This record gives sequence, C-alpha cells and structure tokens, in this order.
Amino acid sequence: MISFKCDYAEGAHPEILRRLAETNFQQADGYGFDPYTESARRKILAACGCPDGEVYLLVGGTQTNATVIAALLHSTEGAVAVETGHIGVHEAGAVEYTGHKVLTIPSHDGKMDPAELEDYLRTFEADEARDHMVFPGLVYLSLPTEYGTVYTRAELLAIREVAHRHGLCLYVDGARLGYALASPAVDFTLADMKDLCDVFYIGGTKVGALCGEAVVFPKGAPKRFFTTVKQHGALVAKGRLLGVQFDTLFTDDLYGRISRNAIDRAQELIAVLNEKEIPFYMESPTNQQFVILENERIERLAAAGIFCEVWIIKDAAHKVVRFATSWATTSEQIRALAAAL
Amino acid sequence: MISFKCDYAEGAHPEILRRLAETNFQQADGYGFDPYTESARRKILAACGCPDGEVYLLVGGTQTNATVIAALLHSTEGAVAVETGHIGVHEAGAVEYTGHKVLTIPSHDGKMDPAELEDYLRTFEADEARDHMVFPGLVYLSLPTEYGTVYTRAELLAIREVAHRHGLCLYVDGARLGYALASPAVDFTLADMKDLCDVFYIGGTKVGALCGEAVVFPKGAPKRFFTTVKQHGALVAKGRLLGVQFDTLFTDDLYGRISRNAIDRAQELIAVLNEKEIPFYMESPTNQQFVILENERIERLAAAGIFCEVWIIKDAAHKVVRFATSWATTSEQIRALAAAL
Amino acid sequence: MISFKCDYAEGAHPEILRRLAETNFQQADGYGFDPYTESARRKILAACGCPDGEVYLLVGGTQTNATVIAALLHSTEGAVAVETGHIGVHEAGAVEYTGHKVLTIPSHDGKMDPAELEDYLRTFEADEARDHMVFPGLVYLSLPTEYGTVYTRAELLAIREVAHRHGLCLYVDGARLGYALASPAVDFTLADMKDLCDVFYIGGTKVGALCGEAVVFPKGAPKRFFTTVKQHGALVAKGRLLGVQFDTLFTDDLYGRISRNAIDRAQELIAVLNEKEIPFYMESPTNQQFVILENERIERLAAAGIFCEVWIIKDAAHKVVRFATSWATTSEQIRALAAAL
Amino acid sequence: MISFKCDYAEGAHPEILRRLAETNFQQADGYGFDPYTESARRKILAACGCPDGEVYLLVGGTQTNATVIAALLHSTEGAVAVETGHIGVHEAGAVEYTGHKVLTIPSHDGKMDPAELEDYLRTFEADEARDHMVFPGLVYLSLPTEYGTVYTRAELLAIREVAHRHGLCLYVDGARLGYALASPAVDFTLADMKDLCDVFYIGGTKVGALCGEAVVFPKGAPKRFFTTVKQHGALVAKGRLLGVQFDTLFTDDLYGRISRNAIDRAQELIAVLNEKEIPFYMESPTNQQFVILENERIERLAAAGIFCEVWIIKDAAHKVVRFATSWATTSEQIRALAAAL
Repeated sequence: MISFKCDYAEGAHPEILRRLAETNFQQADGYGFDPYTESARRKILAACGCPDGEVYLLVGGTQTNATVIAALLHSTEGAVAVETGHIGVHEAGAVEYTGHKVLTIPSHDGKMDPAELEDYLRTFEADEARDHMVFPGLVYLSLPTEYGTVYTRAELLAIREVAHRHGLCLYVDGARLGYALASPAVDFTLADMKDLCDVFYIGGTKVGALCGEAVVFPKGAPKRFFTTVKQHGALVAKGRLLGVQFDTLFTDDLYGRISRNAIDRAQELIAVLNEKEIPFYMESPTNQQFVILENERIERLAAAGIFCEVWIIKDAAHKVVRFATSWATTSEQIRALAAAL
Repeated sequence: MISFKCDYAEGAHPEILRRLAETNFQQADGYGFDPYTESARRKILAACGCPDGEVYLLVGGTQTNATVIAALLHSTEGAVAVETGHIGVHEAGAVEYTGHKVLTIPSHDGKMDPAELEDYLRTFEADEARDHMVFPGLVYLSLPTEYGTVYTRAELLAIREVAHRHGLCLYVDGARLGYALASPAVDFTLADMKDLCDVFYIGGTKVGALCGEAVVFPKGAPKRFFTTVKQHGALVAKGRLLGVQFDTLFTDDLYGRISRNAIDRAQELIAVLNEKEIPFYMESPTNQQFVILENERIERLAAAGIFCEVWIIKDAAHKVVRFATSWATTSEQIRALAAAL
Repeated sequence: MISFKCDYAEGAHPEILRRLAETNFQQADGYGFDPYTESARRKILAACGCPDGEVYLLVGGTQTNATVIAALLHSTEGAVAVETGHIGVHEAGAVEYTGHKVLTIPSHDGKMDPAELEDYLRTFEADEARDHMVFPGLVYLSLPTEYGTVYTRAELLAIREVAHRHGLCLYVDGARLGYALASPAVDFTLADMKDLCDVFYIGGTKVGALCGEAVVFPKGAPKRFFTTVKQHGALVAKGRLLGVQFDTLFTDDLYGRISRNAIDRAQELIAVLNEKEIPFYMESPTNQQFVILENERIERLAAAGIFCEVWIIKDAAHKVVRFATSWATTSEQIRALAAAL
Repeated sequence: MISFKCDYAEGAHPEILRRLAETNFQQADGYGFDPYTESARRKILAACGCPDGEVYLLVGGTQTNATVIAALLHSTEGAVAVETGHIGVHEAGAVEYTGHKVLTIPSHDGKMDPAELEDYLRTFEADEARDHMVFPGLVYLSLPTEYGTVYTRAELLAIREVAHRHGLCLYVDGARLGYALASPAVDFTLADMKDLCDVFYIGGTKVGALCGEAVVFPKGAPKRFFTTVKQHGALVAKGRLLGVQFDTLFTDDLYGRISRNAIDRAQELIAVLNEKEIPFYMESPTNQQFVILENERIERLAAAGIFCEVWIIKDAAHKVVRFATSWATTSEQIRALAAAL
C-alpha cells in the first residue's frame, strides 16, 4: 500500500526515534522543564532570529489554534479568517468553544486578500452598531493554506500592515510551515517570520514529528500562557516528548531538510500528473496537489494499492482529490504512482 | 542524578519505543483510524471485560478529565469531588473553563466518604432553592487518589450506589490506575472496573507511555464524542502514536507487569524509610510515599544527587515530601537512596 | 422631536403601566412564581393554541436567543442562520460566548431560502470530514427579518420540512413577531406558529412592553430550563414585572391590536414615501421601511426635529435609512413627516 | 396575606411608577443612550463622590455578578469568596459558565475574615504548583452578606488591603447595599464605597425598583464593557426603564430614605421577636432576620396569612426561617405579625 492521502501517514523521522530512545532513561522534570525542551526552545528561537522571544510546545494544531487565539483575544473579539480557514471549518468549533467568533472574509484559492481585509475592517469600523458586534481582534491565516497555496513576503507584509493599521495582530497557522518555506514560490525564510507576522507556530506533526507544534512569540507570550496551556488541556506531563522531537528537528536544520524532500517529491508528482494530462483543480507550489480524477481511475489506483484523499465530489463521474507528499515520501513511491496511472 | 520526584521522569517503556520504531514506516490513516488504535481498543476492552464498550485514546490527564466531564454533564450540572481532587486543584480550572462547577466535599487522605456524599446530595435535594444551584451531575474520584490512597471494592460500590441512587454517574480518574490495581490493598482487577464505576480512564503517561490516556466507556460513549474530543483539541492527527503505545501496553499484560514494578519498589522504599525512622505524613499502599523530612536532610539528599518533591511546607524546619516510584524505578535506585539517607 | 429611528423609543403601552401600578402592592413570590406570570403563561399558551406547552418570560432578545439556543444545542452543534441573522451580526457574539458557532447561508432581503438550506445541509452531510466540523443543530430565523421582510406559511413549512428531514429543529426569533402577524403579507396567525416551527419567542420589548420576551415551547421546555435561565443571568427576581406586562398584552388581544397600529401607520408611511418619490432600498410589509435618502434631506429632517436611523452609507451623497413605526406611532407623526419631506 | 419572605415581594416605589408614566411617551434612544440614564449616571456618581467614574445599569444581580467578574478577570483567574457567597451557591454556576472558578474560604456568619484571606493567598503563592492552579484574581464579598451581616469600614479596609497587597481587586456585591448603608452597624456612607473597594454595584431590584443594578467603576470600566454587557445578554433595548428608575432613586436621596424604612421596620421586628422570646439563629443589623421557629408556629402563622421563608431545616421540629423587611414594609405589618405570634 502507498498512501498519498496526507502528510501524517507515517510515524516520525528516524532520527527523532533514535533520540527518543537514546534519552529515554535520563530522568527529567515534567511539564516542559526538561533540558530537551530548553534546548529545543533555544534552537528554535535562534533559527527564528529572535533569541529573546518565547516558544511553547503544544501537541496538535487545533489545540494550538484554540489556545493561542483565546490567549490573544479580548472576550469581545473574534479572529478574522478566510472562509476556508482551518479554524472556521475543520476544527469542530474549537475556537467558538472558547467563546470567540471566527469572522470570515472571502478565500482565493485559500488565500486572504489584503484589500478585502481592509474593506472588511473599514466596513466594521464604519458600522454605527459596531459596539453590538464582535470586534475583529486578530487576523488568522495558514501558511501554506488549506489548498497548499502560499503567500509571498510582499503579500504577508501587506496583510500585516492592514492588520496593524486597525490594531489587530497577525497570527500564522504553520501546521505545514516547513513545506511553505521549502517551496520555490516562497521568497522568505523562517528567520523572516518574526517580521512578517506577530505570532506563528511551526508545525511538527505534519513535518516529521510524532506530534507537536512549536508556538513562537517573537516578542514574548501573553500573560500566564503556561497556565492557559494547562487550562486548555494542552500541557503534557512528559514535556520531553515534545522537547526531544523539536530539539532533533532543529539540529542541523533537519526540519528544513525534510521539508525540502516533500517539495522535491511534489515536483516529481506534478511532473507525473502533467505527463498523464491530469487536470489540476488548483495550482499549488507546496506538498499538497489537488487534481480532478475520474471515479474509475481512483478505483483503479486503489485496486493497485495506491490511495489519494477525496476532497470534493465534482460531479457524478469526477472527484477533486488530494495527493500529498511529505518528509517521508520517496521517489520510488512517485514512480509507483506513475506506473499505476 | 536519581529523581524520586514523580512517576513521569523517564520516557517510555523500551518495548513501546521498539514498537514505534518497528511500525514507523507503515502508512496508516490519521485521527485514530489506524490499525494500531483499532487493536489497542480491542485489547483494552477485552482486558476490561466489556467487549461492547468503547475506548477513546486521548493525550493527557487534564485534557481527558475536562473532555469527558463536559461530555457527561448537562450545562446546569457540576462534578462532585473531594477537596483534594485533581480536577478542583491542579488542573488550572480546565473543568470550569468548559462551564462546569466542581462541587467539593471533604477529603480523607484524598478519599471520598460515601456517607458524606449521601449527606451532600440529600442536603442539595432538600434545598428549597436548588433550582438556583448547580446540580450535581457526576461523582469524580481518582484511583489512586492524589495522596496515593486507594478504595476497596466495597468502598467503590458504596460510592457508586449513592451516586446512582441520586441519578449521578461515577467517573474514575485513573491517571495512575495501574499502580492502584497492582497494590496489595486493592481487592479488584481491571476487569472489575466496569462494575465499580460508569466511566474511567487508564492512565498511560504515568505508567510507561510517552503520553496517552485510554478512556473506557463500558456502555458506549456520549453522543458524538469523537467531535467533542476534536473540539477540545484532544484529537491527535497521528493517532498511531497513542494506538501503538496502548497496543503495546495491553499485549501480554505489559501494563500490569510494569505497574507491579512500581509497587514492588514502593515496598522496598517503605522499608528503607521505616528503617531510617522517617515519619510518614500519610500511609499509602501505592507508588507515592509522603514523608516528613528535615530541610537539611532534603538538601543533603540533593547534594548527593537524589531528589524528592516538596509537597507542603510543614514548619520552618520540615517539609512534607513525595517519593514516587514508577514502572522504571530500580532496586538499585532505592539502595542508593538508602545509602544517602 | 419625532423619532422614527426604532420601535423602542417610547416606554410601554399605558395599560401596562396602569396594571403595574394597580398590582404594585400586592405581595407575590419571586422568580416567576407570582400569579401574574402564571396568568400570562396561561393566556399566551391559549393564544398559541398549545395549552400543554411551556412559556418562559425573559428580559431581552439577545439574552433570549443565547439562552434558548444554548439549551437546544448539543455542544458539538451550531445554529444555521442567514448571513444577516441577528444572532450572527448584532448580538456581540453572545451565541459564540456560550460555545456555539453560528453557521451562515446566504440572505435574500433578510430571508432564508429552503433550497439553499437543503443544499447546505446536504453538502455538510456529504463531507467526509464532517466529524471534524460543527454539526448543524438548529435553524434560526427571525420573523419579521432584520429587513422587515416576512415568510408565508408555505415558506416556513418548507424550511421546517428541510430542517426536520435533517434532524434539526426550527427556532423563530420573534422580537417583532406582532408586526409580522399583523402584516397583510402574512397568511397565518399566532395560533399557527406551533405548527410552523418548534420553538419561538413573542417579543414584548419592541411591541409595547418596557421589556420582556416570551419563549414558547409548544411541546415542553428543555431539561432544567429554569436553571439554564438563571445561569444565563436571565431570571428576574421580580418576575411580576414580566408577568404583569405579558398578562396585559394577552388580555383582550392587546398585543394584536397594538401590532396592527404599527402596520397601519407603516402603510401610511409607505404612501407618504411613495408620494414623495423616495426610492425604497427594499420592500417591507411590516413596520420597518428602508429607503434611500440624500444626506441633505436627512439633515433637513433632523433640523425639523424628525429622525430616522442610518442603516448603510450608500455613496458619498446617499444613505440607506430606516423609518420604523410602532405600537405608539400616530397618524399625526406620519403627517408631520410628510410635511417635513 | 402578609409576606416577610423576601424584599422583592412588591413592585416598585410609587415615585418610580409615577416617573415611568410621566416620561412614557417622551421618545428616547435605546441601549442606555437616553437622557434618563445619563441623568441617573450623573446622580449616582455624584452620590458616590466619584464624578469621573463610570456607571452601567444592568438588570439583575446574578447577571451583574457574572458580567462584571468575567470582565475583571484574566482567563486563568477565579474569584475568591466565602463559602456562603451568593456567586458560589445560588447563581446556578453563572460565574463558572463564563469559565471562571469561584475559590472559597470559610464564612463567618456570611463574612470574610481578612486574616484567612491573607492565609489563603499566601498558601496559594507558596504553592510550588501554583502555575497549575486557578489564580485568585479578585475578592468578592456581599454587603450585606447573605445572612444580613455587615462589615465596618475597618473590616473592609483590611480586606481591601490584603487583596491589593496580593494584586487582586475587591468587588462588592451590593444587591442590598442600601440596607447595609442604612444600618446603625455600618460606619460609612455610599460616598465612602469608592475608597473601600474597587468596584461595586448598587442594588435596585431589592431596594425599591422593579429591576436594575447600577455597577459603579470609580476609576473607569474595563475595556469595551458596553459590548461585554451586550454579549452577556444584559443590555436592555429600552435603557430608559433602568434610567428612569435609578434617576428617581437618586433624586432627593430616595434610595437612602426607603432603605432606612427597611431598617426601622427591622428594628421593630427584632423587638417583636425578642418580646416573643424567639431565638435568633444569627444576629443581623440589616433587613433580614434569621430565627428558629417550631414547625407548628410556622404553620400557625401561615394559617393566619403571614409568611416567612424557610432557610434551613434545623431538626425534626424546628426550622431556621428568614423574616425580611423592605422599603415597602409597614409598621402595621409588623404589628400584625406580633399579634399572630
């Protein structure tokens, strides 16, 4: 079986498992007060070019979004996101569960348009009844987006400028941040993130870790964020599990290297799909490719032990499907797909 | 360094790490739809003697308590716990964060008294203004308790009977359930749990896993519990991480065997403490031992590289400290402690 | 000064004040256990044709929506509303504050289209990832809508049928219900409401009362709704204040009679606006009329002591404004407006 | 029938009804932007000696407590109250519903002891695990307490000092504030409140109004408190209802005068109870008197049409009952009680 369904089909990068085994019996304090977490934090802040910032290691993406957003917003505020933003669609209302509204504006292949954001915020501010409304409190965007698309430095700066002009901060959901940064379409690096947004997280779960997301606050975390993390059930007793993983990912740029593998394999995948004249649903420069396949073809692939993920039922005979590569994808798997197509 | 501070100072049982490595590149679906989770569930239900029940694997204890309690309670209901109950003290108000009150009754070395529970529920029901109050919706207890004490079968049945008579269910926080079941003071087995309470969880984090708690609903889970788990940020994308761990723990009764190690070492520890005539703060038949130490002695131990956890500052010269054994504790470590004392 | 800004510019119908004064020193129990509330409930249920239903008297609209919706939904569910629905726009996120998402579909002059509702619910049900999403739990609509438009019996039945087919209930926000029922465009009566939706409220604040909204549960209220009301801070100690008002409004159909005054005056208002060739922004058969006025004209009216409410800034020279009539509006006021235009 | 059950058995002071009728047809803007509310605010701030403070008019006590407490606390914080504090007992968990824990310390006839508060806060601060706990964020007390007892200026200052020393603010629930200030046992005035606590509310519902509580923020309200009030469903469209009432209560010190009536009648009541040698359950210098009555006597009184409220079932033959006087109680009613006893 070969699965292209998602980028979390395997366990962890072997180096992570090796380090977990190697450190297994070294006793350490809990709740993130272990030396591995300490080291991971230092390395992440160094990689991000903000040594005086703060890093918190949480377990998963929905948890991270809900916890960070609740910590950043006033109770009368909501998070502005595009309609396809993950927090507003596939997180089971975790943000609303904390009492905050997700305010939506249009999505363009998953991306936010700074001019539309400006329009929205102006309209809000011009509303006579705005004191009866949820105030926009932060701008949320995912990088890459839910459709694998990315923002350029100029685009992020434009969104950030709009956000700041209206008193909002910009929060970037980087569940797959590595795959954006490794993409040829992205003209900035991890060290630039601190200048392109106010808070972001570096996704581990989908980029080689068993679990874990590293939230980076370049200018320091909100008040009592440790306790907020605990209150959200997001604090793990064996913080070493997260510490060892991120320490490994940020040693010798393992995170960057394995992210590039996903992008390189995605380029091979795109070549195969083009060669087979399979129509793309949307162009994506990262590790997720959305194409339109005939139902039979999906079935034939499945019969050959190759799987992709159904995204949208297009019509009676076609589906939009996702092929995802990851840190673990091999050229051999891509060749097997080519053969099966 | 030797730490007796807690039972989560090491990583995982080596067999877990071995299995994680062994299965690492087998691709699997996410969110708990992997074969390891499926197998773990089956084995857990078999061990619990309720093959038709349901099992959910979550990450940590506070998260599990908040998610399960919110799922079990009506919005007007709260959870009844003793004053020292973990949910009311050291979970940063995670239960209240979901909108529910923790209703407290007295604690006796960490334990709940069924007669006092009965009194409380009767007083509540006799209150003319009870419709203006939070209704008791479930009884929460931890096994072992926060002080390492345990309940006998008869005691649990008595509490359960009171709870049921008043229409409440009984939920058992088993963060260290293995250490209770392995204790000579406990006269029941894991397979009896389904008859002694309504819902419980089997703690992994403190009993050999890197993370993970297995919630067992002997008679089926509450409505849409999967989505509730997601909403609480408690659903991990790589469900295999939890699946492999619990599958390993419930193969050849590894969970039971490593739990017994903690209890055997605790017996050795008690012998050492008695031999040194160190006064106990409280008797505990499980893996946590609370004793009263002079400050100097704590410092001397620390100087010798041996650590215990300060629990309460007793007076200017003494502290109540905790020595915890675990699945990983060795007789050699106990002997080192004996030497240092 | 004459204000057409809203339908809550005056106090209460004089008969209500008379009854409040008349009963003032009759001692009564609090929290709705007074004879006036009891009588009001009976009269309302009789008027609604569901003597076995239940009625709860709350204070205001936002409060009522948040309380009722939270009581009707499971924690994983949200309320489906059109984009202009009051709960999603001008209630400061009160519904989200209780943890529930407002799920939006398009608005057509404030109205919901049953076919679009069906599409939305089908798309949701066809989504492979729906267990990661907020489940639609109820359909919310306002009658009249925020734009003064109304639904016919057939339209409501169509929406209700869609809702029921997908397992949702239909909740009608009747903040101005009297003005809908009194409209010539509405082909049903208060007694039909029980057959057209599952829960609704009869607005008092905007229809002659000082405050108060009567929630009608034709088939009985949700579990412990009294306590839920208390928990939401919506229970008034002097329940008599609400009881006397609704008892008065439902004596000799005062509610219906004063509602008709608003509609009759609205017809006169429409005639005046047509006569002056003022363009309508939208047709409304109830007490709120939305027209497009030049900024100067708005200013001239204001100079003459006549006020309308700015709704939308249309362009540099024009605004969409609302003229509202109410139970208290007089023909003399309409004539004064005609003269000033 | 004569009811001594509570202080909200009648409607409103006749002057309030007169003013409501007098102003009834004066059109005014909604949501507190009417001239009556404006005038009420000014008068209240003048009476409180803090002309630069802010006043918000809400509807009821539970609502006010939940809204103000949520606005004052950080999400990781709770409110410290005595065990009998209203927010922790008879408000249906409204505070927890907003996500905040009520932290309790012992009650002494309903009162908080500053030394115990100090102890509690110190213990909390000395707890090694305090980052895993709910932080005390404010001190809540009611004046008079739930048992009619009061604090002296020195006692309040002592509590406030402890609170401030630990970084907490002091919030006073003044549902019956008038009855405290009118009591001979209280050595301060309304104008002193700003120096004795940080935020307080002046109860209207139980002191002559139909409904309404005036929250006073001597140093300004929390960020966007208006929207917070709306979000809690506590904003009334016809703000004039609250405005006219408080404007009337604070004209010519009506609030003070009618509060004194309750206290004068309570003194007469105490005299009668003493004369009849009825044992007091607790001494109270305000309008609520708690005594121990034989069940038969309660029944005999009821048969004579005189009612008191059962507070606690003391034993098989006796109950603790409450006799409350109010702004509306007459000497004639007290004499009728004397006759019936």
